[in-house]
Amino acid sequence: MKFTKIPLATINRLSVYLRVLQELVGEEIEVVPSEKLAKYCGVNPAQIRKDLAYFGEFGVRGVGYRVVDLIHQIKEILGLNRTWNLAMIGLGNLGSALIRYANFIKHGYVFAAAFDVDPNKVGKRLPNGLVINHIDELEEIVKERNISIGVIATPASAAQSVANQLVLAGVNGILNFAPVQIQVPDCCHVENIDFTIKLDTIAYHLSTNF
Amino acid sequence: MKFTKIPLATINRLSVYLRVLQELVGEEIEVVPSEKLAKYCGVNPAQIRKDLAYFGEFGVRGVGYRVVDLIHQIKEILGLNRTWNLAMIGLGNLGSALIRYANFIKHGYVFAAAFDVDPNKVGKRLPNGLVINHIDELEEIVKERNISIGVIATPASAAQSVANQLVLAGVNGILNFAPVQIQVPDCCHVENIDFTIKLDTIAYHLSTNF
Repeated sequence: MKFTKIPLATINRLSVYLRVLQELVGEEIEVVPSEKLAKYCGVNPAQIRKDLAYFGEFGVRGVGYRVVDLIHQIKEILGLNRTWNLAMIGLGNLGSALIRYANFIKHGYVFAAAFDVDPNKVGKRLPNGLVINHIDELEEIVKERNISIGVIATPASAAQSVANQLVLAGVNGILNFAPVQIQVPDCCHVENIDFTIKLDTIAYHLSTNF
Repeated sequence: MKFTKIPLATINRLSVYLRVLQELVGEEIEVVPSEKLAKYCGVNPAQIRKDLAYFGEFGVRGVGYRVVDLIHQIKEILGLNRTWNLAMIGLGNLGSALIRYANFIKHGYVFAAAFDVDPNKVGKRLPNGLVINHIDELEEIVKERNISIGVIATPASAAQSVANQLVLAGVNGILNFAPVQIQVPDCCHVENIDFTIKLDTIAYHLSTNF
């Protein structure tokens, strides 16, 4: 499928809808009224309809959404009816915790390789069975293991150079935890997660609104 | 200071500008042309001017921004010319890694308490010196230690109940790592960090744009 001009905010919300729908499956709910789904997702019902309207017609008027069907449809939209192989780069505290975090695999994201430069780490086996490779082996292993997404959990000072190596190895998706803006060519898509930026937003609200 | 109707996106970008400016200080750069600052931040110069214009006039036409001054001004806007005390709730892999993550303290966020319900964890001392308390002690400790922000790193199933306890204890800022939407009253501000939602966005781009 190829869709164009879909706002990024819509894509982000589709993921949120998907997570909530998956929780509903766990509670054995088969059909959810749009008002209820909206409430669980923290948006209004018109927003859900508008977001889904980019991709077709979903739901039954006056009834709501069939949970399993909508999960399947959103997964198809987002490209999630498959698994994605990830490489973790940087096995410090954060990288080591992330690679053990069960939620990735639950959503189809599989850590298939791990890289570091520290000679005390390279060659060690992680609890998930992966052996840590040296970053110099990145290109070879990316090809061997069909890795599509690189997760950067290095110090800020190393992040740009790691990003360059990922791009050279043909990895066009990067999830960056290093607290630095990395520059990549247009063929590559980067998402940043900076914990302290979220805390700044909270601090701003606590300082001004209350 | 009290500002109203500032877009959330502007607040988020101010944090990004702040991070980049702090890097420039490390490189001993005193003045940065607006084009360069914009490039480092991944935005266009007009965006920076527009974001800052909500709060006053900054920078010198034809010269750029004085790095140290702009850092001070953005910190004042965001309420960051002080430290904020945090409580970590949930000391599993993720919570334990986050509490050791040096970047929090670097930006003025100090973990002043840690909570869990697991009898094997309560009473244990963390590497940073904090002793893990039982969640039942939350209200008392929040007051004693002047905690403003709760960081939730529990399983999804516990997150709403922990959020309720935080709100009852008077904690009005929550950073939620649990992969679930939590509901709070209007007096409380929640920011969510869901790693897999970011991966979904990357997967979408890899599936459709390339």
